[in-house]
Amino acid sequence: MKAGIINVTGYAGIELARILHRHPEVEIAGVTGRSQAGERLGDALPHLDRLGLAIEPDLAGSVDVVFSALPQVASAAACVRFAREGVKVVDISADFRLRDPAEYAAWYGAEHPAPDLLETSVYGLTELDRQGVAAARLVANPGCYPTAALLALAPAVRAGLIEERVIVDCKSGVSGAGRGLSLTTHFSEVNENVFAYGVGGHRHLPEITQELRRMRGGYEPSVLFQPHLIPMTRGILDTVYADFAPGAFGSPQAAGQAVAELYRDAYRGEPFVKVVDKPPQTKQTWGNNDCLVYPTVDERTGKLVVFSALDNLVKGAAGQAVQNMNLMFGLPETTGLEQLAVYP
Amino acid sequence: MKAGIINVTGYAGIELARILHRHPEVEIAGVTGRSQAGERLGDALPHLDRLGLAIEPDLAGSVDVVFSALPQVASAAACVRFAREGVKVVDISADFRLRDPAEYAAWYGAEHPAPDLLETSVYGLTELDRQGVAAARLVANPGCYPTAALLALAPAVRAGLIEERVIVDCKSGVSGAGRGLSLTTHFSEVNENVFAYGVGGHRHLPEITQELRRMRGGYEPSVLFQPHLIPMTRGILDTVYADFAPGAFGSPQAAGQAVAELYRDAYRGEPFVKVVDKPPQTKQTWGNNDCLVYPTVDERTGKLVVFSALDNLVKGAAGQAVQNMNLMFGLPETTGLEQLAVYP
Amino acid sequence: MKAGIINVTGYAGIELARILHRHPEVEIAGVTGRSQAGERLGDALPHLDRLGLAIEPDLAGSVDVVFSALPQVASAAACVRFAREGVKVVDISADFRLRDPAEYAAWYGAEHPAPDLLETSVYGLTELDRQGVAAARLVANPGCYPTAALLALAPAVRAGLIEERVIVDCKSGVSGAGRGLSLTTHFSEVNENVFAYGVGGHRHLPEITQELRRMRGGYEPSVLFQPHLIPMTRGILDTVYADFAPGAFGSPQAAGQAVAELYRDAYRGEPFVKVVDKPPQTKQTWGNNDCLVYPTVDERTGKLVVFSALDNLVKGAAGQAVQNMNLMFGLPETTGLEQLAVYP
Amino acid sequence: MKAGIINVTGYAGIELARILHRHPEVEIAGVTGRSQAGERLGDALPHLDRLGLAIEPDLAGSVDVVFSALPQVASAAACVRFAREGVKVVDISADFRLRDPAEYAAWYGAEHPAPDLLETSVYGLTELDRQGVAAARLVANPGCYPTAALLALAPAVRAGLIEERVIVDCKSGVSGAGRGLSLTTHFSEVNENVFAYGVGGHRHLPEITQELRRMRGGYEPSVLFQPHLIPMTRGILDTVYADFAPGAFGSPQAAGQAVAELYRDAYRGEPFVKVVDKPPQTKQTWGNNDCLVYPTVDERTGKLVVFSALDNLVKGAAGQAVQNMNLMFGLPETTGLEQLAVYP
Repeated sequence: MKAGIINVTGYAGIELARILHRHPEVEIAGVTGRSQAGERLGDALPHLDRLGLAIEPDLAGSVDVVFSALPQVASAAACVRFAREGVKVVDISADFRLRDPAEYAAWYGAEHPAPDLLETSVYGLTELDRQGVAAARLVANPGCYPTAALLALAPAVRAGLIEERVIVDCKSGVSGAGRGLSLTTHFSEVNENVFAYGVGGHRHLPEITQELRRMRGGYEPSVLFQPHLIPMTRGILDTVYADFAPGAFGSPQAAGQAVAELYRDAYRGEPFVKVVDKPPQTKQTWGNNDCLVYPTVDERTGKLVVFSALDNLVKGAAGQAVQNMNLMFGLPETTGLEQLAVYP
Repeated sequence: MKAGIINVTGYAGIELARILHRHPEVEIAGVTGRSQAGERLGDALPHLDRLGLAIEPDLAGSVDVVFSALPQVASAAACVRFAREGVKVVDISADFRLRDPAEYAAWYGAEHPAPDLLETSVYGLTELDRQGVAAARLVANPGCYPTAALLALAPAVRAGLIEERVIVDCKSGVSGAGRGLSLTTHFSEVNENVFAYGVGGHRHLPEITQELRRMRGGYEPSVLFQPHLIPMTRGILDTVYADFAPGAFGSPQAAGQAVAELYRDAYRGEPFVKVVDKPPQTKQTWGNNDCLVYPTVDERTGKLVVFSALDNLVKGAAGQAVQNMNLMFGLPETTGLEQLAVYP
Repeated sequence: MKAGIINVTGYAGIELARILHRHPEVEIAGVTGRSQAGERLGDALPHLDRLGLAIEPDLAGSVDVVFSALPQVASAAACVRFAREGVKVVDISADFRLRDPAEYAAWYGAEHPAPDLLETSVYGLTELDRQGVAAARLVANPGCYPTAALLALAPAVRAGLIEERVIVDCKSGVSGAGRGLSLTTHFSEVNENVFAYGVGGHRHLPEITQELRRMRGGYEPSVLFQPHLIPMTRGILDTVYADFAPGAFGSPQAAGQAVAELYRDAYRGEPFVKVVDKPPQTKQTWGNNDCLVYPTVDERTGKLVVFSALDNLVKGAAGQAVQNMNLMFGLPETTGLEQLAVYP
Repeated sequence: MKAGIINVTGYAGIELARILHRHPEVEIAGVTGRSQAGERLGDALPHLDRLGLAIEPDLAGSVDVVFSALPQVASAAACVRFAREGVKVVDISADFRLRDPAEYAAWYGAEHPAPDLLETSVYGLTELDRQGVAAARLVANPGCYPTAALLALAPAVRAGLIEERVIVDCKSGVSGAGRGLSLTTHFSEVNENVFAYGVGGHRHLPEITQELRRMRGGYEPSVLFQPHLIPMTRGILDTVYADFAPGAFGSPQAAGQAVAELYRDAYRGEPFVKVVDKPPQTKQTWGNNDCLVYPTVDERTGKLVVFSALDNLVKGAAGQAVQNMNLMFGLPETTGLEQLAVYP
């Protein structure tokens, strides 16, 4: 199976190259880059020297699957060509995540370049829509924050346990902001620092809301999503707060036990979603495709509090993209993704 | 004015030494340490060599004020002696923060060593009880998290604007966990990692609840306080979520403007509490006594979201202790605390 | 092939578990730990939960190969039993690295527990002694610093190019100091800090000297080895300074070209030692088994300066151990070690 | 005394503002910035809000002293105007450090904009040329690396103890690279990484060589200066290696004692240079103006090894600039610089 990576020089692209290089069923047939086209990949990124590839301006040869790791808008443009040629596509950008082109335009400040493809594209949070992904030709790979938030909320929402107002307080490493230069990602500014950003509305919010709504008929979520940047390279921790629906449980104590069971049942057998019984640490997922979910009930306030941790570049980007590709091609879902976390 | 520092070898004690060394009205008359008594201070802590002191097992000479930076229980025992002798005391531990000895016993697992002193001690969150602090002989210096949380909430609670259910999601640097060794503060475990701790109840919770209750008659807060450890040395960021009381404002838009004004009014003229109009960064307070507060209203959900940032060892510990001492001795509150943040 | 890991709860043991779990020819038959025996491995170390093992006090079942990740002295004691039973052993501690028991006693402050085994053990810097390793029953896995230093120096020493006085200035991440608690590895003390340690003599020095001496008859190296601790978890960078022997080259310019060729020739075909032409970054080896070597000649002073970078827990410990095991069992040397660096 | 800061928005400028704000004899009369002229300083840099200044395109009012924190070339142009008007100037850039305009052109790739001023400017490594600085109208503030290297070497060179070949291996925090954006200072690239840069010649080398030469008649140093970037914000550690001149000491043991005494004598009474007897840590100087120097003799190789640590933005830039200004105006040298290190 031949794969192409569009924009291998960004962090999601780099991570795709790392994972696909060890995928037993995939050959990386070509990689593109925006600024460094023409260079040997190993010159631009020495740790990828073993791939023996050059960075092309565009994918030259034929491929069976394309991964796009371009930023939004540019990504859609690149994906359209392949999608129309019948090549399977996993788009890591946000371009095919929102069903509603008007919402896309509102959040991304641009008309959607291919609204017709929106109708057949599938939101690829694998565990929540396996059949959809398996049948898709164009998968919109979810954002890193939404992956963590949706996996933290899905069992409770699907079971009708929680009310519609939800708070998602997120802490992210800096690689989520990409490889583009800005003062916000300048080492001396970010190191030994923590701050909120996206106050008043971050682009991952509509994606979270859209997918929560799909989880249960009539559920109309009101989500407050607040990301924070913390001084580390990889990792996302989402802390999710919600109130139980009236009568959901007799007591917080009863709720605690029931919620743990509900989540364990929901994710039983999942290869990459682990329900744990202690606060998860992002370091426990460093470099691998796991999402760790820890549902708890705060006895004093009776609230549901769920913690979820993942590596934003793996389960939050490249790893989930490969997981989706596996499904799209009928391969075992874990192929090429069995690597344990690198700890410490 | 002669000051003594009990347990100068912990992080709060080290920071007290740094600040007091430059305080124009204070002479550091003696310092104690638990494990390194007998050593020169400059041998144990080279950057404090200029103080020219030795670490004593107990404060030998007479002092006008004592700062205790011991852990709880041990601290009360050390403070009692000085308090009974009429020496003014600022206790940085938790020992005199909770009014109710039963609550102290429940959270700290020990009978309170001096319940009689609880009645005259004052909770020293300076901005919220200046008169109390000025008149106190024994000040219980607030915890780092409560300082940030209470300053974030006080204007809204006092004005009766918000409901009783409040979520305080905190991100703290590692120095808040002290200088004692543990796997949780081992570099290779904490670096490139983020996780929640104190799930189900952290000792700073009763302190937050107690002081919120005092802010407004009849206000019975239900607080969910969730701290997280992030890979940096200094700094706390609290993100506080609350619902407005019914009818508090006509619309979220109106609320946003009104809340900003309310907070600016509440903290006008405060030397160390700054109401800002962008997300505050802990780095902007590194090494100084500021608390930055940013109140916002999330238009989609109508919630109040307040961000507050401070240096856990300064406004969250030693700086506030000196601020309280200044008040207790009738000095200008800012004396010795004018240092700007060290940035970056 | 059944493998046992002694002391899986230290960092080298953790890394062995990660690598061996994906080794196609190895089954991890048992793991031991000192403090947490009896616990499920996944409770002690959640990211290793997939191994489905419990931590044993001692290896119970039969194994074909044992890796010891115990500290020195304790490690020898544990290895001896298996070595005498004919089980192949890779000892990651320093216990079998020094040929001379007197030198061992001088540096480690203890009589060597099994001097007879010293005679048959092999110093396992794979690239420098493949035949020895392949034939060995007990391999002494090299220290992290020596691996980087020896690979940086070997081509020049073997070719008789440099004089005997050599300076090795090393910068290491904190995980090299292990998982044991100390103020030197306490997050708040190490973060935002750099300092030298082992001034006057570090235990890795005799190992470097011994192996340099073996590289060329009559070469009697005088090594100044100076390690420094820097605030990161993984990675070692060695900067090595040496003078060329008289007449080695006509000019520094000639030397630069010749040295690059010499090193490329020396490591041609090596799967894990890469001669590069830009300063190597430790991040380019994060989590994989590469050692990057960059030989240069400083034109102003005419000195040879070689930079070498590796991951102290992989090529500097567990990865090289597995590489040695592969050789000892006649497997392709790269088996289980093909993972690319996790970047960034 | 009125001071102006040119380019307050770079790291040296920010640090100057912090220090001068608390200097009892100085009023900051104006500050300039390149990109943010017109903004309130507190908007651009919230922690400097207390200064109550706006960022001007050029210094408008009259000043007694100007600090330029511009990059080279631009800085000279800005300084010239003030120097010609008789305003005292401290230039933090490299523009007036090299005596020889040809060398300046060779290293900085530009003709020197004011070679006549080179003749009267003084290299302001305070401790090594107090009289020169006190009499100067234009001080060239030394680079951060040279400050650490020259203070580490001065006593030995002046005493004629060491040979001419010297190795200076440096480890620097990232703020030394300034506030300008580049992939090399992008958080995710630098964090958890260490690498050499400036291989083959860094611009601080000619400055080190020039000043070493001035220390002792006939001393013609051959310096190998190799900087490394490490993942922290502030701090420089220089490790300096040199050989003793023949017959300098009878034995390494004798040398160790004698060298320690020599250094203690050389820096006795210095307010900011501390000779210490343990490896200095950069954290011990965080935010203050100290340089810690630890001279040792390696007994095995007989080499002199000196470690020196400082905060690159204080003693390595803004602090030394203020120290020089104090001398230039006849103030006590420590005025405004008494702040202890912020630890941890």
